[in-house]
Amino acid sequence: MTFSALDSGLTGPLFASDAMRTVFSDRARVAAMLAAETALARAEGAAGLVPKGLAPALARIKPDDLDIAALGTRTRDTGVVAIPFVKALEALLPEKLGAHLHKGATSQDIVDTALVLQIADAISLIAADLIAILDGLATLTRKHRRSPCVGRTYGQHAAPVTFGYIAGTWMSGICDAAAELPALRQRTLVASLGGPVGTLAALGEAAEAVGEDFAAELGLAVAPVAWHTNRARMVAVGSWLATLIATLARMATDIVFMSATEIGEVGEAPAEGRGGSSAMPHKRNPLSSAVILSAGAAAPGFLVTLINAAASGQQRPAGLWQAEWHALPSLFGLASGALGEARRLAESLDVDPKRMRANLDMTGGLIFADAVSTALAGRVGRNAAQAMVAKAAAEVRATGEPLREVLLRDGAPAALLEHAFDLRPASAAAASAAGRALRQAVTVKRDLRKL
Amino acid sequence: MTFSALDSGLTGPLFASDAMRTVFSDRARVAAMLAAETALARAEGAAGLVPKGLAPALARIKPDDLDIAALGTRTRDTGVVAIPFVKALEALLPEKLGAHLHKGATSQDIVDTALVLQIADAISLIAADLIAILDGLATLTRKHRRSPCVGRTYGQHAAPVTFGYIAGTWMSGICDAAAELPALRQRTLVASLGGPVGTLAALGEAAEAVGEDFAAELGLAVAPVAWHTNRARMVAVGSWLATLIATLARMATDIVFMSATEIGEVGEAPAEGRGGSSAMPHKRNPLSSAVILSAGAAAPGFLVTLINAAASGQQRPAGLWQAEWHALPSLFGLASGALGEARRLAESLDVDPKRMRANLDMTGGLIFADAVSTALAGRVGRNAAQAMVAKAAAEVRATGEPLREVLLRDGAPAALLEHAFDLRPASAAAASAAGRALRQAVTVKRDLRKL
Amino acid sequence: MTFSALDSGLTGPLFASDAMRTVFSDRARVAAMLAAETALARAEGAAGLVPKGLAPALARIKPDDLDIAALGTRTRDTGVVAIPFVKALEALLPEKLGAHLHKGATSQDIVDTALVLQIADAISLIAADLIAILDGLATLTRKHRRSPCVGRTYGQHAAPVTFGYIAGTWMSGICDAAAELPALRQRTLVASLGGPVGTLAALGEAAEAVGEDFAAELGLAVAPVAWHTNRARMVAVGSWLATLIATLARMATDIVFMSATEIGEVGEAPAEGRGGSSAMPHKRNPLSSAVILSAGAAAPGFLVTLINAAASGQQRPAGLWQAEWHALPSLFGLASGALGEARRLAESLDVDPKRMRANLDMTGGLIFADAVSTALAGRVGRNAAQAMVAKAAAEVRATGEPLREVLLRDGAPAALLEHAFDLRPASAAAASAAGRALRQAVTVKRDLRKL
Amino acid sequence: MTFSALDSGLTGPLFASDAMRTVFSDRARVAAMLAAETALARAEGAAGLVPKGLAPALARIKPDDLDIAALGTRTRDTGVVAIPFVKALEALLPEKLGAHLHKGATSQDIVDTALVLQIADAISLIAADLIAILDGLATLTRKHRRSPCVGRTYGQHAAPVTFGYIAGTWMSGICDAAAELPALRQRTLVASLGGPVGTLAALGEAAEAVGEDFAAELGLAVAPVAWHTNRARMVAVGSWLATLIATLARMATDIVFMSATEIGEVGEAPAEGRGGSSAMPHKRNPLSSAVILSAGAAAPGFLVTLINAAASGQQRPAGLWQAEWHALPSLFGLASGALGEARRLAESLDVDPKRMRANLDMTGGLIFADAVSTALAGRVGRNAAQAMVAKAAAEVRATGEPLREVLLRDGAPAALLEHAFDLRPASAAAASAAGRALRQAVTVKRDLRKL
Repeated sequence: MTFSALDSGLTGPLFASDAMRTVFSDRARVAAMLAAETALARAEGAAGLVPKGLAPALARIKPDDLDIAALGTRTRDTGVVAIPFVKALEALLPEKLGAHLHKGATSQDIVDTALVLQIADAISLIAADLIAILDGLATLTRKHRRSPCVGRTYGQHAAPVTFGYIAGTWMSGICDAAAELPALRQRTLVASLGGPVGTLAALGEAAEAVGEDFAAELGLAVAPVAWHTNRARMVAVGSWLATLIATLARMATDIVFMSATEIGEVGEAPAEGRGGSSAMPHKRNPLSSAVILSAGAAAPGFLVTLINAAASGQQRPAGLWQAEWHALPSLFGLASGALGEARRLAESLDVDPKRMRANLDMTGGLIFADAVSTALAGRVGRNAAQAMVAKAAAEVRATGEPLREVLLRDGAPAALLEHAFDLRPASAAAASAAGRALRQAVTVKRDLRKL
Repeated sequence: MTFSALDSGLTGPLFASDAMRTVFSDRARVAAMLAAETALARAEGAAGLVPKGLAPALARIKPDDLDIAALGTRTRDTGVVAIPFVKALEALLPEKLGAHLHKGATSQDIVDTALVLQIADAISLIAADLIAILDGLATLTRKHRRSPCVGRTYGQHAAPVTFGYIAGTWMSGICDAAAELPALRQRTLVASLGGPVGTLAALGEAAEAVGEDFAAELGLAVAPVAWHTNRARMVAVGSWLATLIATLARMATDIVFMSATEIGEVGEAPAEGRGGSSAMPHKRNPLSSAVILSAGAAAPGFLVTLINAAASGQQRPAGLWQAEWHALPSLFGLASGALGEARRLAESLDVDPKRMRANLDMTGGLIFADAVSTALAGRVGRNAAQAMVAKAAAEVRATGEPLREVLLRDGAPAALLEHAFDLRPASAAAASAAGRALRQAVTVKRDLRKL
Repeated sequence: MTFSALDSGLTGPLFASDAMRTVFSDRARVAAMLAAETALARAEGAAGLVPKGLAPALARIKPDDLDIAALGTRTRDTGVVAIPFVKALEALLPEKLGAHLHKGATSQDIVDTALVLQIADAISLIAADLIAILDGLATLTRKHRRSPCVGRTYGQHAAPVTFGYIAGTWMSGICDAAAELPALRQRTLVASLGGPVGTLAALGEAAEAVGEDFAAELGLAVAPVAWHTNRARMVAVGSWLATLIATLARMATDIVFMSATEIGEVGEAPAEGRGGSSAMPHKRNPLSSAVILSAGAAAPGFLVTLINAAASGQQRPAGLWQAEWHALPSLFGLASGALGEARRLAESLDVDPKRMRANLDMTGGLIFADAVSTALAGRVGRNAAQAMVAKAAAEVRATGEPLREVLLRDGAPAALLEHAFDLRPASAAAASAAGRALRQAVTVKRDLRKL
Repeated sequence: MTFSALDSGLTGPLFASDAMRTVFSDRARVAAMLAAETALARAEGAAGLVPKGLAPALARIKPDDLDIAALGTRTRDTGVVAIPFVKALEALLPEKLGAHLHKGATSQDIVDTALVLQIADAISLIAADLIAILDGLATLTRKHRRSPCVGRTYGQHAAPVTFGYIAGTWMSGICDAAAELPALRQRTLVASLGGPVGTLAALGEAAEAVGEDFAAELGLAVAPVAWHTNRARMVAVGSWLATLIATLARMATDIVFMSATEIGEVGEAPAEGRGGSSAMPHKRNPLSSAVILSAGAAAPGFLVTLINAAASGQQRPAGLWQAEWHALPSLFGLASGALGEARRLAESLDVDPKRMRANLDMTGGLIFADAVSTALAGRVGRNAAQAMVAKAAAEVRATGEPLREVLLRDGAPAALLEHAFDLRPASAAAASAAGRALRQAVTVKRDLRKL
């Protein structure tokens, strides 16, 4: 059973967490469907629509009382698992109770409500990981707030920053995503109860009250209109997960680059047997980053499926709802793996400030070219300043002579160079940005803890 | 100039609105970049970093003073339009002012800030269309709140609803999307000002103050940390647009189906020459729906690009930022076309309640099978009830005899059938749901009007 | 273990075939890796690089001798299953043989070669399904070659065709895809053997010979250069699968529409308990079509992943190769389910020629408007003819009077109308096209049988 | 007119070639449609269905005789440009000829046939670029066939290769894509002529002959059945373009990495003003690679649209055909830009073999760890060898002592080390693979030249 690498016994442990796997296991799905039927029975019992004994009888059934393989075989004919599921529950109930089960509901009500309950559990797992990641990154940011490091654009040295600033940009990006989670959670945790065409007509005047009780029983909210074919919430969840993964992939991209042999500024923490190679015993591959990047490459595709599935017509379309099942749990799986590895990175990344400093120094001062150019511009105009620096930079590249020497010789004022070749202003500016990221993380973590 | 059908002189008018085309025109882009440079000069002038005269001098430059084709030719070499743009501005300024232009900024600051200003204009257009669509759909919902209509799942008759309910489900879906717009707008309208590596180091201690003034000049907010490589906001905009389009596509899917010749329940309003066929003079194609559906098929792809572009590394990556330009404006273009057609549909859809009623009646009462089954279940248990109705339904299909007659003959109680074959409870339930959708729309429109 | 609906015990049987599930099972993967190591040992043994006894010793190991869960746990640390796999094999071999295992190879060689072996098996399954589908559709096409049926565009009646023609268009589309399969298979069945950086340097001058023997042992071809980071073949496989699924989705889309209650021209064959509804005992949902359409909505996303993964840099990138695993087997899973359902449809679709004829007749002859217009154009020019027919069509719609009567009254020549309102020319043209499709299928099936 | 960055006056020149822009210009589209109508008139004239004078009269009309803006305005109402186009042509023809124009055809026939003609021109442009790229890469491969260079996996040093080998892997990947072009071209260049429902019924018994003549006039082939809703060919074209772009992106990814400041093994050739930075006068950004990578990030999304559009139902669906227009020409635009930049890279990349050698030497011999380990395994078994090398590697990392010294001290045989630390076997293996790539390119270029 392994069309998906997430579900494989061989590769699943690499790509998804055990906890998330449990949330989306078949057993958990059955348990959530059982919870939905029980809540329905309780709400309908309270409204006098079904016997009061139905809910307690359902509550006594355990997920393991149901035969998943048998449900699967029958789902092949019905197209929706809720149909054999309801029949199986009925067989476990006293006859006069069973007849009242699932009253007024449609399969999609039970399956969607169960999914929402699973999403609630999944979001809790994610929130915990996010807090840990933000904690780890905050420590890195603080510790290296003033550790000078090359800032790079297009792979090229650009201007000095600090490593704490870089870690802070990762953290701020994750904060931006995390800050959306409370609202997303609230928006998503909505029960589904509409009956065959969404109007819950079979319950007559009790429909609204039953709908509200049903949702309340499960800790969920109520939608104004049945959302059988209104899948925007599911797209929002998927889009958030894909964005989160992309945000983690930014960090992983940087770590793979910064841990390249020639750069060596960071390294994934070694662990027995981790990141090895079958052919190269000396290698230490950035495996955590690789797992995150594989999730980053796969996430957009799953989001396509969710959007394709959102253009559902009628009171239930043929096939689009089912397409959602091919994508949403997988995105949670990918996210769980990426978060776990991001946590490991945030908590244990090896940082080498000496190497960062050596890399800053390797270009004979070209890293200060922007600062020099800006300083000179105040004297001679921007165009002249840029031309002067560009010419000097070419000489540095050709001869290896330090930029400062070349510029001095070309007539740049010594005092101006003194200031422009000083790392401290760049570090101060970077530290200031890192500080803003740290303050952002404090707020975001506080909100995450409330979830 | 027409790789995109949105930009073609031949097909552009079909797929995007003129107003949105203006927002994303090259001229508007240049104007927005000019506004950004002017605001920067004003903020830096206030901080004493550049001459106070720079901002007024910039404000006197008009977009048409710049040669777009020449900028384009030079962008081919620089990779970013801001570089030739700044040079061109400098040439238009007195020499001693020109040298101070763009101080401390990087190209991306100007291009991203300009984009955000364009997005603000685009969102205003969208909000106006959404209000009009919701108004139109509210009228349809109210008018047909109790007009009986077939509810369908998988293309099959399921159970009765009302057409107002169907229009209400479209409206509620659009409301769900529209309700996110105010928060999305607020989250997105953020200035970009970070300089080459995001720390704005060249401005020294004035950096934060200049950043705040710059944003305030433009009516934008400030991000904690430069968002040069943190593109989650752009993904959020794209995801919202794709979801909005999918939501409109639900309506279009229903309209295409319901206006099929055999069904004939609705029709796109005829207009001279509209929806014709080169070969078939009698045809009236649902053209508005087709435009919406074409946008629906194309939107997910553009979102893929935005997510791919969001995994940007370093202080600026090689290529990913540029990829965004291949997708975000196009999504606004698709949305503008889809919204315009949705508005036309909402305001002028032909509805044929008689045909709806005839379709309800065409199956000899099978449309009431669910109601009968639910009613019988109370007497004989769900399984027995379903079996009885399924058997009767088969007979109806085979013989054409009305379901009610067959069931009476099979021993179903007449009073129970009297009630179950009554359209009124189904209509009442549908009208109730439609009412909830109408109330939702009132709230959402009120918030949209504030944008 | 069920992030993917394909792998779930509950929903897996609905969406993928058992045979395909076996091909991509963990056990089959291990077996294929074992076959790859054995072939390598045989080729290296022949070249005198490893003991001749290694290959027979490996051949005695059975997949079940390996503990999949244990391999999975260790893959979490190594990132690639081949590393713990090789260690586990070594433990099962005599010490002096084990040391020679996997000589010169890298993990990716074994994993990719195993994947290719699984793809070969998967393609055989697909070819068999395609032959059965084409057989079924050929029967439908032949049987209904001259059964008149409405041709529709945009959901509207357009002009008459025959049902055999419609089935023929499905078949011809599937033929087009199937015709690519032999070349795709040949292009894809290529062994991977390059060692750590693709040059197979460890084998020295024997490298090319070993590479050829290795491939030949497995019935595979050899690539000019190691394809560790050249994933175009995998994209081609994925693109073909997605196209195949889209081609099946065309048929499913038509069947859902044509089996809509009001249209009723076809219906999925009833089967005990199939396509039922938990709420509506009378319903017969087009479940096969729904499964195909769900695959159609999900397939494009998986292809995105494969293309994203194809931009792999270096001699092996960080994460992109792994991303492939999230997509390619799943596409085979989706295809297997869609093919199985398409086969059921092709072999058992209920067709109702009487209903087709009734639908043709329901518009008072408007279905002939194109034929009339074309005929009249020869007399009065195209514009005048179209205007005349459009005016008459409006009258037909308003009054219900037959088009022929209206046109006669408007002065159209009776003999011309006699011919234009004759179904036979349209049927003959449709039958002729159906014949071409039948001939195409004969050729394609012949080539498929050779696979 | 610039929803797409490809069409913008500002950014278009950066992302797409002028030649490809001309192929997909509105004017070229109109010209191709005119060619299609002319060919149809010629074929129908030969069959005696329309006056012989129609074709020559059409041939005298020039694209510039048509008002593109006016066609665009009317397309807004008709949904397809062919309708106003035919009316405009008719107005330019003598009345008695005009009436016979477009006989039996439908809009889609003309639009699709025109598209195919544009694709033919586009493929010619691509083939020419591919030949030039392969020429350039062959020169690089040959020149550096034996220049030692680090082979890298996961960003880490793995084992030695040569730079010619690396260039050869790029070339081989491009060859694999290019090798598919002839068959793709042949498969795609198919005329469309089916009339309103694909059966070409209006032409009666002459239909097949006219269809064949029409196609032959245009140098196109004939499909067995009208392909109005069978879009697999268009998916195949899009998939090939996306794969080609991904293949170019592999090269660009490597070049960005290898030109990183710390690595410096290659550099994009400097050109006046090229790859500059508005803030950093010293920088030389890898701009060609960035353009290719931006295309690589955007291409998968466009392919999604094509696959979504391929699931077209009926004899023409509502909206899906139009969706194709949002994607296919854009993919050609992206490809043209990526190919142009790849050509520049292939023809002018700066290569620094000294820096490559220095990077090989920087790790104290760890780059030979795989070779040592393989050699030792023959003596002490693979596990022991790997353990010995891993331990020594750790010491090298900790102390900076050369690996060879450490291993000697640990008792490794000197003669064995002598051989294992020799670059020549690795270079020879790499050169051998490069040679295979060179031979592959010769064959592929020969076939491309025939296009």
